[in-house]
Amino acid sequence: MHVSVNAAVSADGKLSSRRREQIAISGDDDFARVDRLRAESDAVVVGVGTVLADDPSLVRYDETHRTSIRGETASPPARVVVDSSCRTPTNAAILAGDPETYVLTSDAAPESRLTALRDAGATALVAGEERVDLTDAFAAIETHGIERVMVEGGGELIFSLFKAALVDEITVYIGNTVIGGRDAPTLADGDGFVEAFPELELTSVERIDSGVVLAWHVS
Amino acid sequence: MHVSVNAAVSADGKLSSRRREQIAISGDDDFARVDRLRAESDAVVVGVGTVLADDPSLVRYDETHRTSIRGETASPPARVVVDSSCRTPTNAAILAGDPETYVLTSDAAPESRLTALRDAGATALVAGEERVDLTDAFAAIETHGIERVMVEGGGELIFSLFKAALVDEITVYIGNTVIGGRDAPTLADGDGFVEAFPELELTSVERIDSGVVLAWHVS
Ligand SMILES: NC(=O)c1ccc[n+]([C@@H]2O[C@H](COP(=O)([O-])OP(=O)(O)OC[C@H]3O[C@@H](n4cnc5c(N)ncnc54)[C@H](OP(=O)(O)O)[C@@H]3O)[C@@H](O)[C@H]2O)c1
Ligand SMILES: NC(=O)c1ccc[n+]([C@@H]2O[C@H](COP(=O)([O-])OP(=O)(O)OC[C@H]3O[C@@H](n4cnc5c(N)ncnc54)[C@H](OP(=O)(O)O)[C@@H]3O)[C@@H](O)[C@H]2O)c1
Repeated sequence: MHVSVNAAVSADGKLSSRRREQIAISGDDDFARVDRLRAESDAVVVGVGTVLADDPSLVRYDETHRTSIRGETASPPARVVVDSSCRTPTNAAILAGDPETYVLTSDAAPESRLTALRDAGATALVAGEERVDLTDAFAAIETHGIERVMVEGGGELIFSLFKAALVDEITVYIGNTVIGGRDAPTLADGDGFVEAFPELELTSVERIDSGVVLAWHVS
Repeated sequence: MHVSVNAAVSADGKLSSRRREQIAISGDDDFARVDRLRAESDAVVVGVGTVLADDPSLVRYDETHRTSIRGETASPPARVVVDSSCRTPTNAAILAGDPETYVLTSDAAPESRLTALRDAGATALVAGEERVDLTDAFAAIETHGIERVMVEGGGELIFSLFKAALVDEITVYIGNTVIGGRDAPTLADGDGFVEAFPELELTSVERIDSGVVLAWHVS
């Protein structure tokens, strides 16, 4: 499987303010770039923290770009939530609409929540005891034909993916604001590394909107 | 006064790991760039958090660059610590060596500590009750002939400078590692903004070492 991470951060590396509400960091040209990235992916992945904070639908992608590189019959990118306890609300936007939605969950999910999400149309896959085991869960969606995934955040999920050595590349739009805040979410949160920091290789630098997009390959 | 901030962060925006120990984020070419920035400044400023974590001497700067732009007789950049309670140890590297060291402190500093730092050779200036009032403190060092300052961190001080609208420009080296950690220091910590985020204008993008340097002008 190929895992690419994409996110927009402020000039000081924040995904949002300490209030964890969605903040417009980038602009139209970057949105179009993200829509193309989605179109190249079999699935778009977020953590349940992002679902609860932003309620994204993840249905938008560049249809023309998709058919040009994947053919007319390619199915639209599926949606994936990483959600140990099935906290995704049944009326979440990520469950509405056509593209399939996978909920990657764990043994910690109450049976009733699992059933509720399945009834709401999700395909729930269980991997891990307390928390989602990302390696196993990603292997499970791969058996459903998902080969290329794009992870759109948040910082807790992104850190865990680096920790599990699952990330192949990361693209970051850095915008022209300062958000600040020792409690604001950043591109990679979690416990953090204290040694053996993952190394990246800078593959491209491009000015877009009022900021810049850095693309890194994970060594 | 002209205030420029400079720092090195990981690709995910961290100044250090959650252990707050110094981490080599950039390389020789970026060190040389920083030495030139220091040489163009009348003073280099850090917060006491950085003094306690890294014990920097801040004596290194590009002498040739300095004499070429400021003349043979220009004095070397002074050093400044922002330190409400005079927690700077009397044996801190920032107090040793020739260039003058200013301790910007507050009424909260115990008289004994103030005396100890003065005895250790520092020029202590008091501004603010509980914490250093940065506007007043910077005005105070300006009366000592300091017109151009370069702030080298950390994240708590940088946030407060943005909050006080004292920053004119910010230059950030973004390096090729992921540090992660919801408790790791970032480029701008403090309480953070939740609205009226400071706006920046991207003035230059330059690949250096294995990363990139972004220079922003504060609008
Ligand atoms: N600017 C951007 O591009 C962007 C993009 C996305 C999000 N955001 C912002 O980011 C914030 C949300 O980010 P976040 O970090 O709080 O949440 P997140 O990464 O979206 O979700 C984290 C949650 O995922 C679940 N999870 C399950 N297994 C996990 C594992 N192995 N590792 C990590 N997490 C696992 C955990 O909850 P359970 O234990 O309950 O499962 C965890 O709390 C919001 O403020 C949002 O606006 C910004
Ligand atoms: N990568 C880099 O370029 C770089 C550069 C510098 C530092 N660092 C890292 O950053 C970390 C230290 O950063 P930090 O954020 O903890 O400390 P910091 O910003 O260096 O210092 C913060 C301290 O300054 C004092 N202060 C006094 N008045 C203040 C005011 N008005 N606003 C804010 N602070 C005020 C406060 O202590 P009192 O209340 O006691 O005065 C505060 O805790 C270390 O891990 C260091 O390695 C990295």
